[in-house]
This record gives sequence, structure tokens and C-alpha cells, in this order.
Amino acid sequence: MLIVMQAHATEEQVRAVCDKVSSLGLKAHPIPGAQRTAIGITGNQGAVEIGVFDDMAGVGEVIRVSKPYKLVSRDIKEDNTIIRFPALDASIGGQELAIMAGPCAIESREQAFTVAERVRRAGAKFFRGGAYKPRTSPYSFQGLGEEGLRIMAEVRDKFGMVIVTEAIDHESLDLVEQYADVIQIGARNMQNFSLLKKAGRAQKPVLLKRGMSATLEEFLMAAEYVMAEGNYNIILCERGVRTFADHTRNTLDLSLVPAVQRLSHLPIVVDPSHGTGKRNKVLPLSRASIAVGADGLMVEVHNDPDRALSDGPQSIFPDQFDQLMNEVRQIAGVVHRSVAAQQAVAAVR
Amino acid sequence: MLIVMQAHATEEQVRAVCDKVSSLGLKAHPIPGAQRTAIGITGNQGAVEIGVFDDMAGVGEVIRVSKPYKLVSRDIKEDNTIIRFPALDASIGGQELAIMAGPCAIESREQAFTVAERVRRAGAKFFRGGAYKPRTSPYSFQGLGEEGLRIMAEVRDKFGMVIVTEAIDHESLDLVEQYADVIQIGARNMQNFSLLKKAGRAQKPVLLKRGMSATLEEFLMAAEYVMAEGNYNIILCERGVRTFADHTRNTLDLSLVPAVQRLSHLPIVVDPSHGTGKRNKVLPLSRASIAVGADGLMVEVHNDPDRALSDGPQSIFPDQFDQLMNEVRQIAGVVHRSVAAQQAVAAVR
Amino acid sequence: MLIVMQAHATEEQVRAVCDKVSSLGLKAHPIPGAQRTAIGITGNQGAVEIGVFDDMAGVGEVIRVSKPYKLVSRDIKEDNTIIRFPALDASIGGQELAIMAGPCAIESREQAFTVAERVRRAGAKFFRGGAYKPRTSPYSFQGLGEEGLRIMAEVRDKFGMVIVTEAIDHESLDLVEQYADVIQIGARNMQNFSLLKKAGRAQKPVLLKRGMSATLEEFLMAAEYVMAEGNYNIILCERGVRTFADHTRNTLDLSLVPAVQRLSHLPIVVDPSHGTGKRNKVLPLSRASIAVGADGLMVEVHNDPDRALSDGPQSIFPDQFDQLMNEVRQIAGVVHRSVAAQQAVAAVR
Amino acid sequence: MLIVMQAHATEEQVRAVCDKVSSLGLKAHPIPGAQRTAIGITGNQGAVEIGVFDDMAGVGEVIRVSKPYKLVSRDIKEDNTIIRFPALDASIGGQELAIMAGPCAIESREQAFTVAERVRRAGAKFFRGGAYKPRTSPYSFQGLGEEGLRIMAEVRDKFGMVIVTEAIDHESLDLVEQYADVIQIGARNMQNFSLLKKAGRAQKPVLLKRGMSATLEEFLMAAEYVMAEGNYNIILCERGVRTFADHTRNTLDLSLVPAVQRLSHLPIVVDPSHGTGKRNKVLPLSRASIAVGADGLMVEVHNDPDRALSDGPQSIFPDQFDQLMNEVRQIAGVVHRSVAAQQAVAAVR
Repeated sequence: MLIVMQAHATEEQVRAVCDKVSSLGLKAHPIPGAQRTAIGITGNQGAVEIGVFDDMAGVGEVIRVSKPYKLVSRDIKEDNTIIRFPALDASIGGQELAIMAGPCAIESREQAFTVAERVRRAGAKFFRGGAYKPRTSPYSFQGLGEEGLRIMAEVRDKFGMVIVTEAIDHESLDLVEQYADVIQIGARNMQNFSLLKKAGRAQKPVLLKRGMSATLEEFLMAAEYVMAEGNYNIILCERGVRTFADHTRNTLDLSLVPAVQRLSHLPIVVDPSHGTGKRNKVLPLSRASIAVGADGLMVEVHNDPDRALSDGPQSIFPDQFDQLMNEVRQIAGVVHRSVAAQQAVAAVR
Repeated sequence: MLIVMQAHATEEQVRAVCDKVSSLGLKAHPIPGAQRTAIGITGNQGAVEIGVFDDMAGVGEVIRVSKPYKLVSRDIKEDNTIIRFPALDASIGGQELAIMAGPCAIESREQAFTVAERVRRAGAKFFRGGAYKPRTSPYSFQGLGEEGLRIMAEVRDKFGMVIVTEAIDHESLDLVEQYADVIQIGARNMQNFSLLKKAGRAQKPVLLKRGMSATLEEFLMAAEYVMAEGNYNIILCERGVRTFADHTRNTLDLSLVPAVQRLSHLPIVVDPSHGTGKRNKVLPLSRASIAVGADGLMVEVHNDPDRALSDGPQSIFPDQFDQLMNEVRQIAGVVHRSVAAQQAVAAVR
Repeated sequence: MLIVMQAHATEEQVRAVCDKVSSLGLKAHPIPGAQRTAIGITGNQGAVEIGVFDDMAGVGEVIRVSKPYKLVSRDIKEDNTIIRFPALDASIGGQELAIMAGPCAIESREQAFTVAERVRRAGAKFFRGGAYKPRTSPYSFQGLGEEGLRIMAEVRDKFGMVIVTEAIDHESLDLVEQYADVIQIGARNMQNFSLLKKAGRAQKPVLLKRGMSATLEEFLMAAEYVMAEGNYNIILCERGVRTFADHTRNTLDLSLVPAVQRLSHLPIVVDPSHGTGKRNKVLPLSRASIAVGADGLMVEVHNDPDRALSDGPQSIFPDQFDQLMNEVRQIAGVVHRSVAAQQAVAAVR
Repeated sequence: MLIVMQAHATEEQVRAVCDKVSSLGLKAHPIPGAQRTAIGITGNQGAVEIGVFDDMAGVGEVIRVSKPYKLVSRDIKEDNTIIRFPALDASIGGQELAIMAGPCAIESREQAFTVAERVRRAGAKFFRGGAYKPRTSPYSFQGLGEEGLRIMAEVRDKFGMVIVTEAIDHESLDLVEQYADVIQIGARNMQNFSLLKKAGRAQKPVLLKRGMSATLEEFLMAAEYVMAEGNYNIILCERGVRTFADHTRNTLDLSLVPAVQRLSHLPIVVDPSHGTGKRNKVLPLSRASIAVGADGLMVEVHNDPDRALSDGPQSIFPDQFDQLMNEVRQIAGVVHRSVAAQQAVAAVR
């Protein structure tokens, strides 16, 4: 159920409705919009009558929502969600594209700084890097852990970048929340509901990657798990799905971008590195991702991909990233978006 | 096996090599390139020694090709294949993008003319329309047959457009070859090898659609079937593959475009109409297709989609096609391509 | 629309209804059942009133059928279709399982006879072998053509077996109909609607293989294409579908067997050779196919698989086929089916 | 690397080799077999020479293992792993099939007891039931939690059944280990590597379900994660994969059973309830699962499926389970397996 307040409803009126919801054993999620506040209601509403709210002061409309997802839906919030990082002059979902770049795994302070300097200079405001790596084999490099997080915090301090990194369980999520700016939940954990709930109680935005064989509805329901716990700052990320096709590691499903934008107010970015698994496909698919309307990109860049401890074959060189930014900048204009300017990094700090 | 002739090899030298190939019970496919001629050899070459050709006059190099496809490969022809329709001032694979638009099925002269006028005016030089429709149900509209072909021939005469239409068996292929300019082989027939061989003996270019679950290699091998019979003018078309994803009718696999371009000299266009099955996805995916580097688009346009006899939900309105062309034109510039200008159709008549 | 005649309706009454259907511009398909005759009606029935037939003599019930397939549906024919080959004492769909065995491709008279003798002796009554082979590469062995058909006709004469072989186009279908007993339509041609219609006009039963990525509905609609032309003797064949899984060549979807049996009266057999692509999986999946309730098996057997011209790695040895028959015979009993006894082939000659 | 000890190697010799491995900074996994002990070595072995171990007393052979999985491989342990529950006279992987049955979710003590009595009486020795349910929607019933575990512990006491139930995070895994006999890791958590490692440190066997789009190699690698931590008692479970096919909820991939058995010594069971998602498919696919060679079944049974809080449409009725056991018992004989006899439950306690 969804209660749409009148445009001029007061805070007290919103609070009164929320209290009423609680008194019925349900949970209220007030979500302020540009024009008016909507209140999503979650919990078993089988026996609740619409009439209970209809006549309360400030209530505009009471709607039974038929879709299984509620809080992520455009029905509850018509305008796009924009996630802002004012201290770092960055945002996701707004007019400026969010470009996230960095190595698959943080391997050393030197490696991280080398890559960060190059991608920041090219215009990326977000630095991605893994400290906790979910690897298919238990015998592969599993990441530097907290040491990797510390290095990324230094990257933020030195280059003024927003840090995005993955959490793989409750323990690492606490640490990621402490050190980083955006908590990434990986594709393999998209339906790790315990971790989603934990992320929903965190105070930092969550970047949620689509599972390898997740439908659109399952993807939105996973975001709903996070939101239902109270964290409304979610970025979705298309990163390819598993199909029979073998010319790429995954099949990048760009049609998901307009599909998400129709149904949900959440921003969505694309990861062409995992989405193709091949260096020579990253640039063309980056162009296509922006052209299709994505809110940003997540790209793996490595200064020495052949010696990368993880995902070398899909990481591009810094020079290729320069070219990528150049091409993306031109396409951004066509879809009425912009890309941050190149920046002399010395100027950052 | 592949014989690369020297840059200055004479026609007689090429002919002498071909004669030698024939004398060994094999088939020679001389393919002229910008710099030099290559001669593909097909047939069972188990017992043939490279040395047989090595010392012939004009021979530069003899290479054993390990890939299963030969004639479609960039190994045999480094420069892109460009298919030209000089009488109609159109081409596929060159600098100008090939934009193919029209209704799913030809329903009447009036419908065809109405749509053709609009798409021609917007800049499309290729008119697509079905006279023979492969339908899932035997009880659905199966197309107007030869009457549909006649209407399309009139469209060519009146609007100066290149006609692309599907053949579904030997009989219809003969008729399509007679009336149209490009013979389309549909996704369901991608491995109808008998039809591919027949198309390989036709005198008109062939547009080959990727099968619903075809790998890249199978797709190239299907093109090889056509080329092995002597027809070297082939256009590949990505039109979405079948996956578990249910938010679109098919999953459009744009990564196929750079993958094909790496391995083959053949042009490749994208069909976002079948690739998504939804009207509201056609524009964003058209932009993405051009951004990824495709040589053109194949788009379903209908003046009255709600009453279309086939594929209405994925056909766009003429006004949407105007917008599509406008957006595509801008993106084309970023990837160093161009789109034909809008055109007062009166000038055509 | 479906007209179910009364149990005691006379032939004249059935004919009168069919005439009425024709007079309305529709096509009538009278299908006799054990208890009563049903008449399927195909063609555009938008404007036809049920009342037109309701009061005709002998009519029991008039039903509007909502499923897209009609003639293949159990709604129109409740009891299982059994296809009989009385001269050869064989049937498909009855109590005795139909075991089809033989080489992928007919390579020579000697090879065909060697394999036929072994599989016939083990209890197989159907001989399968390819004369026209749809191969991914144009440079692979494409079959012996009519010579292969002649060899198979000899196998029938000598060993008393029912011959099943594939047709790949109109021309080969005519020849297959002439020489063989069952016309196979391969997976790649499941939606070659022109070929399906041609098969629908043939006088011999059709074995239709499921396409690589065909849904259940598409599979039944393909059979409907054949039936709509008047050929009601169709055997469906599950042969694996294409998925991401790479431990087998295809993923054998045994759940299709009970799914088909729920919706359709047609018999369904399973091909574990193509369904797995691996010799060591053929026996376990053959057992599973019978256990799940299939009406029979289609198995590739070769006397010298390592030198087979096609599909060697999935062909089993004659000794393995003996073991397969032994195991299948035991499982058949559990599902109330039987397998023909082993047979001294000398008696056949 | 893998060290195969001689048949008569003493315990001290095994211990000496393990000490040597540790001294090199690697981890030794001694795995006793019927004939001889093998010692798997994990950790970065780049610089370790085979010669280091070659001449130690008791060492038979030192092998470099090329497959990415080691401990789960038949290379390291030739004979099948059998997991025994002697107190409850049950086992998995031995001659007797392991039949696991029970409701999807534990809803109440009464429900659990009602179902347990019926399935125990029919011959099932394993009781399955969910206390922690991974649900697609945050608003669906999520299980009774510890209360559900307590009820299942009572089922063990009263009916003498082995309890199998799912853990979804570290916290619930501790509780499941405490109350139950087998720790289930669900399909959605197959690559939740943090949870796999935690399960690898538990003292109870782990039943690991195949992920929705997991390849065979990824599945075995997930088991390797558990084993690498020291827990060698793992049961694999095929439960269907996600494909385009829509006649079942998932596509049950029975070919995985012989494929696993070829590569690994671990037992594998099949879950036809999730594997099909449809009640009317559970019996035929159960028969097929046993026929293909699985070591057991996991089946959802509910006394009142229409009111089940989870997965009602795929749960079978107790009477259907009786029939299932009857059919499975007959097929078991064909594949040289057995099923526990029906049992008057009063006799249990």
C-alpha cells in the first residue's frame, strides 16, 4: 500500500500517518519527493482497509500497489533518485555521468595511486578497487582486506575521489562502511539476503550488481530488500548475464537500462569490463552504455594488466581509459548528459 | 588453405593458381583486396602439400588456416567488405550508415507507400518489409507473397530505396531475387543449409540474421555456407538472442558487433526491433547500436502499429523514427560515420 | 474452435459438419478417437457463431479453444496417438517402447548393415541413419544423399526395420518419403515452416525434433504446422537445448516429456546422443528418459566411432547398446512399458 | 600438488609429510582412502619442487594436479565418499539411496510432525525443512528461525530422522550446526564464499546446492572452498538451472549426475521439486533422477500444499510421496541401489 500525501501536507500530518501505520503493526517508509511526500507501507496488509487512512489530514490518495516491489518503484517516487557526495563534488543519477574506474583488486599502495592518478586526471570522480575479492577458486588471491581499504581511504584523501568497494559478508561490510563511500554488493551476493539487509542498515549508499542470471524483477526485489531496511541510496549496476554465447565472458544486457528507468527511480550504471571480460570490447560497450542512457560506468583500469592479480584480461590500460573518456564525453552530449572535465591532479590537493 | 598473391601479381598469375587448385579437385575463391588478391581454397585438402603452390609465379605466401571459417575471415581479406548499390546511391559497410526501415509485413500498397515516404524523408535509404513471414502459428497472417514483392518493387521505383526482404524457401528466394535488392535470410533459417546454399548461388546480396541461439562461430559458418557457393556480398545482422531474461523479447547482444569486426571483413547491422520486442526500447538501443560501431540499423516502422498484422508492439511510429534518425545522426559523428540527409521525397518522384 | 461429436454420431453427420465448416471458408480436421470423433476447425473464425453448429445432428459440444495450438492438443483428442507400422510389427506411442538406433550418418552399405544387425539383434525395431546431414561447416561431410537412402531401404528389406531419416529441404523430403518410413525434421529446421508444410502433405509419419532454443509452445506450434496440412502422424523428439552449461553439448530437458504428455496426444521420444554429446552419458540418460515416461529412444550407435564421419564422440559401441537395452528393458517394466525381445537376426533374413 | 602414500605407509610417515608441507608454508590435507592415504596440498606452490617429497619414507607418488579443483577430485580419492549417520542408521553415497523429504518451510510443530510421520513411514530417513528461508521478496514469510530449528530437533528425537536445513549467514549457520545434522547451503549462496568457508569449519556435513547458473566447474570449486577449510563431508545437489524454457520453473540438468561422478568422489542428490517447480513433474523426474544414478532425492512434501507459506505449487501430497517411494524403490533395483523399507513409525520411539 502506498499513501500519497497532498502537496501541502505538513510534517506533522506525515508523522501522524506514519504513527497510524505503526499502530497497525506495519512499517512506514516516508519518501520525500520534489512535489509531495509518499509513504510506502510494508508488512502483511491483508486485513488493512484503505479507508483507515483515507480521511486523515493531508492524505491525497491511498493506492494498493500490485507490483511485488514497492519502495524502488516509480509509483512511489516519480523523480529520479540522485545520490550526492557534496564534499567530493560528485553525484550519481544527476546530469553529470558517474564514471567509476580503478583496478579490479587493490594490490599495493603504489599500484592504487598510479591508477588513481591517471583515471582522476582523465575525469573519473569515483575510484573502484577490491579489497575483498570473491574468487571462484579458494586458492586465488582473495584481496588485501583491511589493508586494501586503508589504501583506498588514502586515495580519497589524496585525489579527492569517491571510493567504491565490495563487501562480501557482515564483517567486511562494517569495515567497508567505515573506510569507503559506496558499499558494493557483488553479482554473486545479489540474493544473499542477509547481506542485503545488513547493507540496508548501513549509513552509506549501496551499489548493487545484477546477479548472473537475475531477472529484472529479482534485481529490483534485491534492491527492495536494502530499501525495506531504511537505506534509500541505491545504485543498480548491469554487469552482464550468463548465456550460451561464448565470444564474451558474459552477455551485456543493455536493454536493462531503459527497462529499469521505466519502473524505478534508482540510478543505473553499467560495468562493461565484467560485462564482456575482454579488453578490446570495453571501449565500444562503454560508448553503447552511455548512448543507451546509463547514469555512469564502472571500468577496470590497470597500469600493468598482464601482471594483475585478478581480471587482467578485461582491464584496460590508462591510455585506453583516456580515449574512453574522450569518446564517452562526446556521446554524453547527445543524451543530454555531461562528463567531468579532465583535471590536473596536482590541483586536487 | 589460403594463398596470398604478391601485390603486383597479374591476373594471369591468379588464374594459373586457380587452375592448379581446380586440377587438384579443390575449389578456388579469388578475393581481390585493396593491396593484393587472396585465394581461398575449400574442399578436402588433407593430402595437398603447401609446396605445390609455393613456387608458382606471383604467389606471396601460402597459409594453412586453422579457423573453421575461411572466406568470411579477415585472414583472407583484411579490408572491410563494402556492398554498393550505385544506382540508388547507397552502400553497406562504408562510411555512411545503412539505415533500413519499414513495416514488419507488407499489408497493402497504401501502407507500404505511407511508411516508405516517411522513412525515406527521414534519411533511410533501405526499405524493409516482409512478403513471406515465418510465423510461429500456422493460423497467423503469412504475408502477401509475390503481391508484396510487387508493391516493394514499386516502392523502389517511386522512392529510390534499396529493397530488403526475406526469403523462406527455394521458391520464394527466386522471386525475392527477381523483385528485391537484398535477400534476407531470417533467424529461424540461419542453419537451413539448403537455403543458404541456394542464396550463395544468387546474384544479389544476402542479409543473414543471427539465429536465436547461434554462437559467433556458427553465425560466421552460416555466412561461409553462402560464400562457399560464390556469393561474397553478405551483410550480417544481430537481432537478439534467447536467454532467461524476460523484460525484453530477446536479449540484444551488442558485443557481437566488435567481435564480428575483429574476425571478419563482412559488414554487420543491428535490428533493435526484434532485439527487444518493445517499442519503448527501440530508440535507446538504436543509439547504442551505432555507438558500439554497427554499420547500420534495421528498424520496424508502422503508421498504425496497433493494427499491424505482425509485430505491432515492437514497431515504432514515423514520428519516433524521425527522432531516432536525429539521435543516430549525432552519435554517428562520434564514431566517424555519417547518416544520409533528410530528403524532400518529392525530389525522388 | 472444436466440435466434439456425440459418441454415436454417424459418418454422414460428421461429413455434414465438415461441409458446413468448409462453406464458411474454414478448414475442418476430423480426428477419430476411441469414443467419439472431434473436428478441429482452423482459419479465421472471428465472426463465426458457435450456434451455427450447435443444433446440427450428432454434435455433442462446441468449444472455443484458447490455446494457440489446436490439432496437437489433448483437448481435441484425449487418447494417445499411436503410430503403427504393421508390416514391420512396430509402433510408436503404444505399450511397447520405440527404440531407434543406428549411425549418425550412413557411410557405406557395409557400415549400415554391420550396425543394423547389431541393434536389431539387441531389440531395436527402428533404424536411424542420415543421408542428408545438416553440418555446421560447409566443408564437412554432407551425407551420401540418395545413395544413403537406398542403403537404408535395403536395411529395411534385410532386417525388417522401420527406417527413420532426415529431410532437409523439399527435394530431399520427396526422396525420403519414397525410400524411408519416417521423415525426420531436424532441430535446425524446427521452424523452417516451408519444410513443415511440405511434411504435412507427405503420406508418411514425421519425427519432429525440438529446436535448440524452442519453448514447449513453439515446439507444439511446429507440430501444428504439420498437422494443419493434414498429416496427423507426428512423433516429437526432445534432443537437448542450448544453455550456458558446458559439461555436455546440450542440456537434455527431460521435464519436457511429462509436459508434452499433459498437453498433447502425440508420442514423444528422447535422443540422449545429441542431448548430451558424450558417449559416457548416453546410457544413464537413456535410463532416465524411459523412467521419466518417454515413448522411446533415438540413439547413435557406430561400429567404429573413432572413424565416424560425423558425431563420433557421442556414438556408442554396439556392446554398449546391448547393455543399454538390458537396462532399459528393466526400467520399462517399472513404468508399465515393454521392450521388444532380442532377436536372432538370421530369422529376419 | 598431490602426494599419494604407499599402501603400507605408517601414520608417522603421513605425519612427517604433512609437517614437511607445513614447514614450506603450505597446507596439507591428508585424505585416507580404502587402499592408501593421499595428501592434497593447497597454497601457492609455484616454487616447490616435487623432489622435496619424492624421497621421503612412505611416499608412493607426487603428482602435479592441473585441474583447478583438487580435494573434491577423484584424482585425490578414487573411492566414493560415504557420509554416515550411524546413530540414525542412515548414510549418503552408499548402496542405500538417501531420501530427504519434508516441507519447504517449517510452519508449526503440528505441520512438521504430520509431514515427518508420513515421509518416515514411507521410508525416508532424512527430514528436510526450512527455518531460514531465502525469499525473493522481503515481504514474504522468512521462516521461523531458531523456533523452526527446535521443532526439527524434536522431529529427529521422535522419528529418528536425519535433519537437513539451510543456513543463510554466519549466525544461522552456528545455530543450524547446533540443532541439525546436515547444513544446507542454498543455490543463491553457492558462491557466497564467506559462508562456504564458515561451513568448511563446521563439524557437520554440508549439502551444497548448485547455483542457478553455475557450471560444473564452478560447482566443484564451491565444494572445494568448503573442503579447503577442512570439512570433507559434502553432498552436492542438482536443483535445476535457469534457461529460456518456461514450462518448468527451472531446467533440471540430470546429465550433471554422471558428470560429477566422473570427476569427483562426492555424493550427489537431486531436488526435483525446485528442479521443476511443478507438483505434477516431481514423480517422473524423481524416477529419472534415480535411473540416471543419483545418490538420493530431496523432495518437498506438504500435508496442505495449497496453504503452504512457501513453494506450495511444487510440494507433493503425502499420498503422492508414498507412490514416489514405491516407484523409486523399483528403479533403485535396476541401478543396484536400495531404498529403506517402509516403517511403522510407532516402532521408532
